[in-house]
Amino acid sequence: MDRKIRDTRKIAIFVFAMFEKQVYIARRQELLKRMEGQRGIALFLGNVESPAQYGDNCYKWRQDSNWLYFFGIDEPRFAATIDLETGQETVYADDFSLDDIIWMGPMPSVRSLADSVGVANTAPYDALAAALKGRQVHFLPASRHYNQLLLSKLLGLRPEETVSAGKAGCAKASEPLVRAVIEMRLIKDEREIASIDAACNLGFEMHTIARRGIRPGRIEQEIVGDMEGLALAKGWGVSFATILTQHGEIFHCHSHEMPVEPGKLMVIDAGVEANDHYASDFTRTYPTSGRFTQKQRDIYQTVYECNELAFSMIRPGIAYRDVHLAVAEHMLDNLRQLDLVRGDLAGMVEDGIAGLFMPHGLGHNMGLDVHDMEDLGENLVGYGEGQTRSPQLGLGSLRMARVLQPGHVITDEPGIYFIPALIEQWKKDGADGGRVNYAKLKDYFDFGGIRLEDDVLVTEGGARRLGAKRLPIAPDEIETIMQNEQI
Amino acid sequence: MDRKIRDTRKIAIFVFAMFEKQVYIARRQELLKRMEGQRGIALFLGNVESPAQYGDNCYKWRQDSNWLYFFGIDEPRFAATIDLETGQETVYADDFSLDDIIWMGPMPSVRSLADSVGVANTAPYDALAAALKGRQVHFLPASRHYNQLLLSKLLGLRPEETVSAGKAGCAKASEPLVRAVIEMRLIKDEREIASIDAACNLGFEMHTIARRGIRPGRIEQEIVGDMEGLALAKGWGVSFATILTQHGEIFHCHSHEMPVEPGKLMVIDAGVEANDHYASDFTRTYPTSGRFTQKQRDIYQTVYECNELAFSMIRPGIAYRDVHLAVAEHMLDNLRQLDLVRGDLAGMVEDGIAGLFMPHGLGHNMGLDVHDMEDLGENLVGYGEGQTRSPQLGLGSLRMARVLQPGHVITDEPGIYFIPALIEQWKKDGADGGRVNYAKLKDYFDFGGIRLEDDVLVTEGGARRLGAKRLPIAPDEIETIMQNEQI
Repeated sequence: MDRKIRDTRKIAIFVFAMFEKQVYIARRQELLKRMEGQRGIALFLGNVESPAQYGDNCYKWRQDSNWLYFFGIDEPRFAATIDLETGQETVYADDFSLDDIIWMGPMPSVRSLADSVGVANTAPYDALAAALKGRQVHFLPASRHYNQLLLSKLLGLRPEETVSAGKAGCAKASEPLVRAVIEMRLIKDEREIASIDAACNLGFEMHTIARRGIRPGRIEQEIVGDMEGLALAKGWGVSFATILTQHGEIFHCHSHEMPVEPGKLMVIDAGVEANDHYASDFTRTYPTSGRFTQKQRDIYQTVYECNELAFSMIRPGIAYRDVHLAVAEHMLDNLRQLDLVRGDLAGMVEDGIAGLFMPHGLGHNMGLDVHDMEDLGENLVGYGEGQTRSPQLGLGSLRMARVLQPGHVITDEPGIYFIPALIEQWKKDGADGGRVNYAKLKDYFDFGGIRLEDDVLVTEGGARRLGAKRLPIAPDEIETIMQNEQI
Repeated sequence: MDRKIRDTRKIAIFVFAMFEKQVYIARRQELLKRMEGQRGIALFLGNVESPAQYGDNCYKWRQDSNWLYFFGIDEPRFAATIDLETGQETVYADDFSLDDIIWMGPMPSVRSLADSVGVANTAPYDALAAALKGRQVHFLPASRHYNQLLLSKLLGLRPEETVSAGKAGCAKASEPLVRAVIEMRLIKDEREIASIDAACNLGFEMHTIARRGIRPGRIEQEIVGDMEGLALAKGWGVSFATILTQHGEIFHCHSHEMPVEPGKLMVIDAGVEANDHYASDFTRTYPTSGRFTQKQRDIYQTVYECNELAFSMIRPGIAYRDVHLAVAEHMLDNLRQLDLVRGDLAGMVEDGIAGLFMPHGLGHNMGLDVHDMEDLGENLVGYGEGQTRSPQLGLGSLRMARVLQPGHVITDEPGIYFIPALIEQWKKDGADGGRVNYAKLKDYFDFGGIRLEDDVLVTEGGARRLGAKRLPIAPDEIETIMQNEQI
């Protein structure tokens, strides 16, 4: 690595926009229509490079997703405005100097990049401040720290005022703009669905490598490396930090230094981000020895049934919140048969008893972000008119509660976990109202956890699992394929 | 990927410090001694997670290198102070709540982490502001945007005042602290050398995969994925974005969508960062068809000789600037034999003619950063007392000019490139004083470039190439091994 390479590291790969220019023009026109009646300017900030170590050794370049959706140019240090009163669109970025071109070879001009996405006007990056002066500025919440700095400087806000207010709303960002963007990005068109299908096919390949790599004695990190290598060879990389753990009950587990042990359950939750930045996200859980114990199979079967039940219910017009609750009921019914819980099903569902076993939601939106639009505010993205978020463990973590519409892309990811600290806390607090068989649960303290996740498109007629092939999931199927793959 | 996993994504892997606590205690005592006479507090900021998309989908966790060197704890959201007047050391960080522990399993306390690196006092993260109040604060330049925000808030500076002033100096950061840190980190001890050797061994493996992957028709990105997969399977990942290009003359080339073409030269500049964060950095250049053309071999042989010449000169007491100049002279001598340049050797060296062919420096420091300590200011790191940076192309880009000492770890990376835009510019400007044979150079406009890089330790007696085995480099050796590897 030499000095000049460092100097030019700032400049990432020039990829012209993924789709033809008409796509971006139509999206911005639609946005302008949805913002009708608003005064001022809509501001879009692309990302700049993000330093990993010193300023010029940066993480892999990743453009902002909202920028990609409306302006497509996959390059650092771009910004744009749409004048909501006149419809005028301007891209702000700097052309390369002759010196840059010596180091980087021939590079497209800002003008040609703007043309590729149908924007008429261009201006230098530093002209942005003057363009905003004295105007009402509609901006989206910033995720990157640099954009927090920049917005704070451009708009005279404190950096903490430029970010999303989390679940609650969008703070000083523009709620009309946030809502308009969410409404558009929630419904994926045919091109986007093709991109997500392709990302899912890569996810299938990556999970296949993972499953074949499970052998007692191997170090987990080796399997993760094989998976992520595939993601980098055929796509942008992983769509989030790979979760591969024999402690599925510890949700954060990104630590991969353990050897694979026989008799455990291995949770693998991982996805690929394709070169065009659309994501996939799958979870499978494998018996490390290739066969389930009876105890493992009982719980696995329940999670599998919950995944299938959710998929069978997904169709336009049903609230995903209701699908979550149906899954919770089925889960509790099966756990009751195992004598882990006792009592009236409807009452247990209402009191959120399922949250002890599945303390997360059934799924989330997926698209250009693996948790699509999480930067724009969880509740605004996942909750429709009249829906409020539950305070219950589990249901309260549901990120997509909306009434489903064709074009929604969501995950279907039920799970069951036995989390000793949580179980002890409920026992102490009496949070279960007498429904939990704590004595029997003791036998599950070393069980771990199981999660099974598919990516699903809501269609006119119902639903379709994304990707050409579904990863093996039925318990018999898993055992057969693992036996065949093992030498 | 479910919600709670997202929530806990903030918390990276807990790795206790790499070395035993005495190492960190000794380093901080040495630093305190070097800061004798200074008043106030030395402030060290660890990193926080860096968002890739939305705030909770972050890039892979990477701690700050200065923090790692003195405080070792490989965790986000830690800070520390050393009181230069009393010697008191305090680590600032927050313990996990019971809720966190439910989601993450048992986690070590801040107290136990501080103990692991021998720090006596701990305090909550938010107590940092009060601790700095009214004191003179010595801080290091910030690289991450978040630390710019934080320093700006803590010290009442503008964010741009918190970063390094580039080559020139260290702006509002503390020059005494910066100089003390550089003097210490420049000299690697035995533990660090063992770590770098291990990172080099992984670099050897990664480059071996790369070489074996070169076959006309393959897409470059597939080779890069295979390489980076190995880096992730056995180390933290790559130590910088992999450069793999059939256009070696375009230095920035991180674009990997091209198929491997026969008859080209493939430059591969890549390194591994080991799990303990020490780096390696190697470059090799391969004929894509497995055999060099005579024209390629002539230039390759020259670069190879330059690499060997530099290594043969590396020993305590010689300025690396002089090694760079010796390489420039040898390069020009060989290019003169090819009739690409004409005239008196000493005069050509003095006038920087070599910069047309090698517009970068011979090497840089390497350690916890692949360009070690680049955040602290290039000239302060790479130039000793009495040395000033040349304005010439090539020599002016030399990042390590210092008189060598045992314990320095540097790269030896000569290269020759034929950059049409640069050649045209020199021709137009008459920058060569009549020494360049532009007519003959025309034949090289589609040549590309060649770079050959090893990592070298300066020893008491001379030098040692790092890593157990050297990557094949002699032209015959390259052809033989590539013939044997091809099916």
